[in-house]
Amino acid sequence: MEIKKINHIAVAVENIEQATEFWQGILGLDLEHVEEVQSQHAKVAFFPCGDSEVELVQPTDPESGTAKFIQNRGAGIHHLCLEVEDIDAALQELKARGVRLINETALVEEGRKMAFIHPKSSGGVLLELYQII
Amino acid sequence: MEIKKINHIAVAVENIEQATEFWQGILGLDLEHVEEVQSQHAKVAFFPCGDSEVELVQPTDPESGTAKFIQNRGAGIHHLCLEVEDIDAALQELKARGVRLINETALVEEGRKMAFIHPKSSGGVLLELYQII
Repeated sequence: MEIKKINHIAVAVENIEQATEFWQGILGLDLEHVEEVQSQHAKVAFFPCGDSEVELVQPTDPESGTAKFIQNRGAGIHHLCLEVEDIDAALQELKARGVRLINETALVEEGRKMAFIHPKSSGGVLLELYQII
Repeated sequence: MEIKKINHIAVAVENIEQATEFWQGILGLDLEHVEEVQSQHAKVAFFPCGDSEVELVQPTDPESGTAKFIQNRGAGIHHLCLEVEDIDAALQELKARGVRLINETALVEEGRKMAFIHPKSSGGVLLELYQII
């Protein structure tokens, strides 16, 4: 499997506007845009940072994984996303090697395919794979 | 403050050799080197990933922050490290703006200066600032 780079690091927040005061107002990162990501039941703010991004993720559904994460552990770093060349091949390879996947096939959204690896298989790290299409 | 990029994302692990089986053996990242980082009371494995790194951090002292993190929350993503141009200026600016710092002045190690921002000030994210010197 070829990992190209860290695509983004996602931070679970209760309120994007308030968190933006820190990431943009204090740290000086540029807020590129805010977007509703339906598949994640979340509003996401994108802050480019070098060749990667910091993403602030505010849940829009109290039953979503991110909402439960905040309820259980408080706001904070939620997941790490690695960009791969070929996500379908990567998922097949991981499955063949016994890695537990949250998404056995990639979710497809505009311009990207993505899937999550279960933290049980990655030492407690919620890991997203991502392919630009 | 000018943030250049994500320098690394640190993952707290109980056992570096075992975790390396996943990050290198399964994901295919290259293990660059393993190093004892005295100031962090930890053994750290460095995996370059694009223009950033994934670092696996195994505590060597049960009283260290990383050891307590694992005891309280289990292994997983521990902190995000952002590389800045001038860490001393950044810390002064943060302090002046009321941001709570774990290290009010930067720790100096070979080739680098670093300091941690308290998660209370950064929405639950343990954030490290880092300058290559």
